[in-house]
Amino acid sequence: MNKIEVCFSPLLYPHFENPEANVVVVDILRATSSICTAFKNGAEKIIPVSTLEEAEKYKEQNYIVAAERDGEVVDFADFGNSPHNFTEHRIKGKAIVYSTTNGTNTIKLANNSNQIIIGAFNNISAVCRHLMRENRDVLILCAGWKKKFNLEDTLFAGALAECLIHNHQFDISCDSTMASLDLWSLAKHNVWQYVQKINWRKRLALDEVIEYCLKMDITDIIPVYANEEIVKYT
Amino acid sequence: MNKIEVCFSPLLYPHFENPEANVVVVDILRATSSICTAFKNGAEKIIPVSTLEEAEKYKEQNYIVAAERDGEVVDFADFGNSPHNFTEHRIKGKAIVYSTTNGTNTIKLANNSNQIIIGAFNNISAVCRHLMRENRDVLILCAGWKKKFNLEDTLFAGALAECLIHNHQFDISCDSTMASLDLWSLAKHNVWQYVQKINWRKRLALDEVIEYCLKMDITDIIPVYANEEIVKYT
Repeated sequence: MNKIEVCFSPLLYPHFENPEANVVVVDILRATSSICTAFKNGAEKIIPVSTLEEAEKYKEQNYIVAAERDGEVVDFADFGNSPHNFTEHRIKGKAIVYSTTNGTNTIKLANNSNQIIIGAFNNISAVCRHLMRENRDVLILCAGWKKKFNLEDTLFAGALAECLIHNHQFDISCDSTMASLDLWSLAKHNVWQYVQKINWRKRLALDEVIEYCLKMDITDIIPVYANEEIVKYT
Repeated sequence: MNKIEVCFSPLLYPHFENPEANVVVVDILRATSSICTAFKNGAEKIIPVSTLEEAEKYKEQNYIVAAERDGEVVDFADFGNSPHNFTEHRIKGKAIVYSTTNGTNTIKLANNSNQIIIGAFNNISAVCRHLMRENRDVLILCAGWKKKFNLEDTLFAGALAECLIHNHQFDISCDSTMASLDLWSLAKHNVWQYVQKINWRKRLALDEVIEYCLKMDITDIIPVYANEEIVKYT
């Protein structure tokens, strides 16, 4: 039976590595929500880069660059990583170079898996349908917050796991998957209220995007990472 | 305000390291439950060792050695790590050398903190009272299962955090602490039933000890680790 596992931090990934799995990378605040939005608004592709040096080299070649570190827009970048920045006007038909504190490195981490899928509440139902069609192991890889467990990525993992087991038989014997399902069961009737408790602490600056990043299914696009770039799965 | 943080895996510990904190190490199945039992039954001290080579050297010096790897008793050891092994008859007044797959290494990990406390459901109320008297930051460090998140250590973390915030003001803005509290809120009315879902998978061999390891307050002893050995806090 195919299994669903959840990895709460990039640091734990070596203990979950599974070449057979489709890996869903999630960084709700904000990288994977922004990537979904970028494709919805017509981006041709996204090139995730780990370092600001790489990002700056692309900038010199006239690429559009979205880059932040610790929530601040990087000086040479065109904009930071709020999904509201990825407007149709700016990005339609273009390649965007993207570098963030947590998210973009996590996407590149799962390179040895079967497929790397970009997941967010913004495209969760499409991702769920895709995974059911694929019919193989699923690993949900949370970017976390500065390498630590975070609640919003975990809630997404719980929501996706719930969608999958509702429609298909999966082995969910991973403790992290069970915890994600249980936390989602507590949050799902009012996710906005639930995330208030994470909000008051560290994410005040993110206020304006949290509501957007919790919206389900604003797009059916499934971004996938392969050969150093993210493109629409077709 | 003092904070309560929860670290779900030894691998994440570098991101939680806090020299000011009292660190509560937990490995419900089974190391920290067994250590509490050993002191309850009169052990003088416990020497946790990381490698089987070290453990064997102690054996040659006629120490009592408790050692397991992946749930199996090591051949040269006197017994493994079931709490039922640490009987008064065997250990009263004696020093015991102890080596396990996860727990003993995790205990040694937090060496740079203010105090390392051995916590389990078996001594949870005593640990809670001790931490309130100490009045400083608390970090609950879960041994996890093979470096991964596990539910039973997380439930202990939630139960201890609940006890602390019930009696004292603490900052609980750590996402892991919030998740632990929420999972404990789901489990606490019937912990035995809740852990059945972890049990059916990987812990069948532990059946006989799970019920015991979930028992609260069989002892008031607070084992602490310092200078390479665990003794009773006095």
